[in-house]
Amino acid sequence: MRQRLTVEAYTAGILSGDRIILSRAITLIESRLKNDRILAKKVLKNILPVTGKSLRIGITGVPGVGKSTFIEAFGKHITGLQKRIAVLTVDPSSKKSGGSILADKTRMENLAHDPLAYIRPSAAGLSLGGVAKNTRETILLCEAAGYEVIIIETVGVGQSETLVRGMSDFFLLLMLAGAGDELQGIKKGIMEMADVVAINKADGVNKSFAEQAVGAYRNALHLFPKPESGMDTQVLACSALDGNGISALWELILQYQEATLQNGYFDKNRQNQNLEWMHDHIRQTLEEQFYENTALKKALKTTEKSVTEGRELPVAAAERLLESFFKTRI
Amino acid sequence: MRQRLTVEAYTAGILSGDRIILSRAITLIESRLKNDRILAKKVLKNILPVTGKSLRIGITGVPGVGKSTFIEAFGKHITGLQKRIAVLTVDPSSKKSGGSILADKTRMENLAHDPLAYIRPSAAGLSLGGVAKNTRETILLCEAAGYEVIIIETVGVGQSETLVRGMSDFFLLLMLAGAGDELQGIKKGIMEMADVVAINKADGVNKSFAEQAVGAYRNALHLFPKPESGMDTQVLACSALDGNGISALWELILQYQEATLQNGYFDKNRQNQNLEWMHDHIRQTLEEQFYENTALKKALKTTEKSVTEGRELPVAAAERLLESFFKTRI
Repeated sequence: MRQRLTVEAYTAGILSGDRIILSRAITLIESRLKNDRILAKKVLKNILPVTGKSLRIGITGVPGVGKSTFIEAFGKHITGLQKRIAVLTVDPSSKKSGGSILADKTRMENLAHDPLAYIRPSAAGLSLGGVAKNTRETILLCEAAGYEVIIIETVGVGQSETLVRGMSDFFLLLMLAGAGDELQGIKKGIMEMADVVAINKADGVNKSFAEQAVGAYRNALHLFPKPESGMDTQVLACSALDGNGISALWELILQYQEATLQNGYFDKNRQNQNLEWMHDHIRQTLEEQFYENTALKKALKTTEKSVTEGRELPVAAAERLLESFFKTRI
Repeated sequence: MRQRLTVEAYTAGILSGDRIILSRAITLIESRLKNDRILAKKVLKNILPVTGKSLRIGITGVPGVGKSTFIEAFGKHITGLQKRIAVLTVDPSSKKSGGSILADKTRMENLAHDPLAYIRPSAAGLSLGGVAKNTRETILLCEAAGYEVIIIETVGVGQSETLVRGMSDFFLLLMLAGAGDELQGIKKGIMEMADVVAINKADGVNKSFAEQAVGAYRNALHLFPKPESGMDTQVLACSALDGNGISALWELILQYQEATLQNGYFDKNRQNQNLEWMHDHIRQTLEEQFYENTALKKALKTTEKSVTEGRELPVAAAERLLESFFKTRI
């Protein structure tokens, strides 16, 4: 691993918008090494006062829906408005971040070369909790580096949509028009999370299907309860290919932000997300303290063996380990 | 709440197969009161040596698939073989167990009156973790009371299928035949968990559709990787109404048990489940210790307020609380 910088160097680099230092800081917060974590905490504390000012947009959609092309078109629209945009991807199924950097930059090549855009691939994490922690902190770092719009993209594996929804101000569901079966195969819960459903690839021969799908989804969404934001879920068609609907979508998002800032939901949502973040961090730290407790490691191994072999009841074994754990903390 | 019995009375009652005492013991393990938990632990420890001998069958299927009618027919088949069967339902969405007892017994009236059957409705739990804990312990109590087959039924809300799979020896997915769209709308992951897929309501005009569906699922399952058990997922049609396929299904289950006992998977699976149980218990207890720590409750409230109001970074707040927590444990 590369040499670490000082807390001051990370802080100053991030605040000046230096992408190389930003990238190194993100690598730092993703590290599980103890010294890195101490360093990362100090950096985060320093940059905290200048975070929270971006618009955080979560985007999901099944593979094949054209997420990368969409994000590229959407991102270029935003940088065209002279706004700085960061794109983070959350993929709990990816084992390691290293390999996908090139892939992510390749699939959004135009955006990757835009000086107003910053693309950061998948946070590597052993657990969904680890992915969540890394992504939340990466959002803060990007905000401190001056990015005004943060896209958090997810591939929709397991619980990742809920996780991304839980750190976004706005949640966009990308879909494709089918031929008559528009409502098939969508996880009901995901639909309910969306602030906007965008039917992508509304171009060429597909355009009229997309418009039919818009109608079908609008009808379907009538059956859903009103979202907590007070804002009805919007449906529109768009095309990353010819750019149709992209600027309309951005306007919708701005309207959503404006309205929820006024009705108080925007701040309330952020507050709840912060609380959730705190509790996630508590749960995660408790587990880490337990499982990374060196005094306990040997006992843990022996106990796993005795439980596996049926010589001890799982609950009794757990209680015994917990008792030792709390003793080592004295 | 009713008077508690002594540890000895619970133990003797359960071991003698007394259903009333069994029910009261289950209520005891579901209790969150501290004294009840101490008592429950002692009872569990006493009965441990006579647990683990049942065949644990998890059953899932979407609402409308006819789970209750199926379980009743299946249960009656098993009691007809002079085997004792217990039916537990896991419904993480139910807020309270009290209300559903009558409902569960009503919807399986024949089985409920069978002296060889015992039906226990949904474990009430605030969290999925709580539901899991209660259900696992209930399985042990039922085994100690002499039930040889334990059905764990789930409604398939959220993660409940994974949870039930994680405490079963055998997992059954109930499905309905559609007209041509047999493979729509199934969560892929659930299909992969099943040891047998049973197409229910294969009776009357529906019979030929069910047989088509069996073919379609068999074809689809070829595309799946071989299950870890070494046993291919079986597909059959059945009817709770006229009893077709019920005894064939029971034979399949016995064959599965026999084969996995021989290839070692049966025991390996139980061992892994025990390990998982231990780790779940550890995680859950750590959280309980933290959140139910009286010395911390006031600080937790104040901190939640300061995080909500944006005066403190969630992570910093969490760290501060954790530090106090470990201090109170000295």
